Amino acid sequence: MRKGQWFIIITCVLTGSIRANSDSLHFRRIFDEVLTNGRCYEDLRQLCKDVGHRLTASPASYKAIAWGKLTLESLHLDKVWLQEITVPHWERGTIERLDFSSKSTPLMLSKCTALGGSVGTDGQVIEGEILAINDWEELKKLDDKAVKGKIIYYSKVMNPYFISTFHAYGDCGSYRMNGAIEAAKKGAKAIVIRSLTLKEDSNPHTGMMRYEEGVPKIPGMAISVKDAMQLNELLKKDGKVTARMKLDCQIFPDTISYNVIGEIRGSEFPDEIIVVGGHLDSWDIGEGAHDDGAGIVQSIEVLRLMKLMNYTPKRTIRCVLYMNEENGNKGGISYAKLAKEAGEKHVFALESDAGGFSPRGFGIDGTDEQVTKLVGFKKLFEPYYVHLVQKGWGGVDIGPLKEQGVCLSGLIPDSQRYFDFHHAQSDVFENVHKRELELGAGAMAALIYLVDKYGI
Amino acid sequence: MRKGQWFIIITCVLTGSIRANSDSLHFRRIFDEVLTNGRCYEDLRQLCKDVGHRLTASPASYKAIAWGKLTLESLHLDKVWLQEITVPHWERGTIERLDFSSKSTPLMLSKCTALGGSVGTDGQVIEGEILAINDWEELKKLDDKAVKGKIIYYSKVMNPYFISTFHAYGDCGSYRMNGAIEAAKKGAKAIVIRSLTLKEDSNPHTGMMRYEEGVPKIPGMAISVKDAMQLNELLKKDGKVTARMKLDCQIFPDTISYNVIGEIRGSEFPDEIIVVGGHLDSWDIGEGAHDDGAGIVQSIEVLRLMKLMNYTPKRTIRCVLYMNEENGNKGGISYAKLAKEAGEKHVFALESDAGGFSPRGFGIDGTDEQVTKLVGFKKLFEPYYVHLVQKGWGGVDIGPLKEQGVCLSGLIPDSQRYFDFHHAQSDVFENVHKRELELGAGAMAALIYLVDKYGI
Repeated sequence: MRKGQWFIIITCVLTGSIRANSDSLHFRRIFDEVLTNGRCYEDLRQLCKDVGHRLTASPASYKAIAWGKLTLESLHLDKVWLQEITVPHWERGTIERLDFSSKSTPLMLSKCTALGGSVGTDGQVIEGEILAINDWEELKKLDDKAVKGKIIYYSKVMNPYFISTFHAYGDCGSYRMNGAIEAAKKGAKAIVIRSLTLKEDSNPHTGMMRYEEGVPKIPGMAISVKDAMQLNELLKKDGKVTARMKLDCQIFPDTISYNVIGEIRGSEFPDEIIVVGGHLDSWDIGEGAHDDGAGIVQSIEVLRLMKLMNYTPKRTIRCVLYMNEENGNKGGISYAKLAKEAGEKHVFALESDAGGFSPRGFGIDGTDEQVTKLVGFKKLFEPYYVHLVQKGWGGVDIGPLKEQGVCLSGLIPDSQRYFDFHHAQSDVFENVHKRELELGAGAMAALIYLVDKYGI
Repeated sequence: MRKGQWFIIITCVLTGSIRANSDSLHFRRIFDEVLTNGRCYEDLRQLCKDVGHRLTASPASYKAIAWGKLTLESLHLDKVWLQEITVPHWERGTIERLDFSSKSTPLMLSKCTALGGSVGTDGQVIEGEILAINDWEELKKLDDKAVKGKIIYYSKVMNPYFISTFHAYGDCGSYRMNGAIEAAKKGAKAIVIRSLTLKEDSNPHTGMMRYEEGVPKIPGMAISVKDAMQLNELLKKDGKVTARMKLDCQIFPDTISYNVIGEIRGSEFPDEIIVVGGHLDSWDIGEGAHDDGAGIVQSIEVLRLMKLMNYTPKRTIRCVLYMNEENGNKGGISYAKLAKEAGEKHVFALESDAGGFSPRGFGIDGTDEQVTKLVGFKKLFEPYYVHLVQKGWGGVDIGPLKEQGVCLSGLIPDSQRYFDFHHAQSDVFENVHKRELELGAGAMAALIYLVDKYGI
């Protein structure tokens, strides 16, 4: 081998290790800052306690928008603005009642919640016999006659078998989402679902349900797991159980809301945009702390860390606080549409919307080359116990950017506790752990740093 | 290459992949069982709620021994027995008072706890000026005159910089452990420490302190982090702060207690013993749920899973519920000594004593070959998000087996929340998460299966 070749090899190895070393030092600085001077936990306290839950088009959602704008403005970014979008407007109302009776039990009250988007019961009480359905197959086999006038109870249990609780959720989610459509097609009056959680407790969990053009809109509710277990007992013992349901939910005309956006302009490639975000709206119970207050304050923290560390990105880093993920994703859809119309070039988008728990990795939704490139950085994350960098899922809000060829990524926190709180009264600030939240923000800042520095 | 060589290569590859496949199937069965039929969470409920905290030599510690024996017996193991050991006997007493006063604040009461092993104050109130010390260097620099008659307050803050909270604990632990010795050498009357936790709350955290032969025994207490912060404020504002301390702890003569042991005899190598264990004793506040009720019920679960799955181990699998880890480690020391005297051959020992949180891996304390062998199984663990299999720490209880050449291993759970509860009133059953506990037990069962099957 000639001298020149040796020189090149040695130079490459040294450059590579110097690069890796400077990256690992930058990682360590990010984590130092976030763990010792992080603001995201205090931000979350404000968002949960001063604003509270913030369903799209609710008064609190506009308060959240104002809070988000002020918070981003306090970072002295290059630009902070509101992006106007059209959103659905649904209100829960004030009456939510669902009780059961059977031969042995004249009255079983339940802890219940309307499913998001449900119609109300027009001031009436809907009464009907409960028909328990464990899966789609069972429903499909039934004659319309057997379903007509009944209240379908989807009794499907989230399967503890799955290691990631998101897989267990995915396995059951369609009953909540499409249960009313399929039940109505066969003539049912209403639906009830067992709450989508692995925890045996008394909290009902809400979440989106859908209607279909041409199919009657029937109301939908969720009961807590403990109540579902009691209902199962009644059905087993007495065979026939009657339910009475009253709801005063209302669907209003679409209205105006906003995505909140702040950015630091890139120094070298200002036209290449990297998004980091989560969703600012939440369901209208609890405080939306894990879902998705955590993602909001972590995304803000990524930009705050850049300013704090005097780091000037090469590319434009944009923090997007999306509106309306929970019941329409109009924030995500509109953002992508407007970006396309404006001829913007997005290169990467990172979302945090899986809770503020200890980060375990990132899912990457991109080309094989992009996945390989990011997986190549895995070693840098391992000292922070962030071991999973792999092909996977980005997020609902950033999803619509996909068709513009943007590489998407989603933070993967430890999933075990997420569905304990998801869409329930218990999703409050007190159930978020300061350090876990901060570590997630640190991991996100580290990934954004790499993508900004090396491109994707 | 000759045909024969090809044959050998193909056979090796196939055998390897069949082996890996049968192991991954066995892993999946273990996790299925523990997540759907696991008993460890119910066991923990019993241990925490029916027995409660169980300091060595306390009445409840004997109740815990009886509970442990009955629980192991219910598994129909080959043998269950108690191993008699000599243990220290310390009692907290009923009086724990520590208050402060300064020019601006005539009385600041504190939430406090005696450190484990502390002497009492002989029915008196000890009064003295507070001398805040941030680290050993500061103390070393002081003249004895400056310390004499004072109450030393170790104000050292656990450093949030560390990613694993165990490193932050290690960084501060010596002030609690040796603080009274070093202070007494310079003539101090008593010591107070800031509780060893990263959480800013009002729970004082106890834990072991040491005395040294020939150095006066002075009492030691911990105050909650919030009180420590308030005390720092007083010191800053008023300069001089006086403390008054009263304790009626007592040290009694050594007494008799027991390790609880159950085993399944090996079918091929019954003389090769694999230990899985944790410690049955706890501090005398809270319920010892994470420390170390979790490790106890997970270790029991490993044997239960073997019985449930009709798995006959090649080697003898022994579950050891050690007594006295918290204030003497006499259970661990005696177990190793008796094993040596009996000529037993231990090949592997696994401990769970870092909380019942989501498992992230195992530390291996063995020869390079042993570490390499176990790291070689890493891929099998990854579907369960158990990514760390690396050289590391075993555990306090199994530590004394080390000098017999035994390969040790410690379960590594997510550490972020551990010191929120460690040795405090808040270490209760409610703060342990069912699935996280079960996943830890599953990971332990999987590792024991591999070591049993392939040897170490």
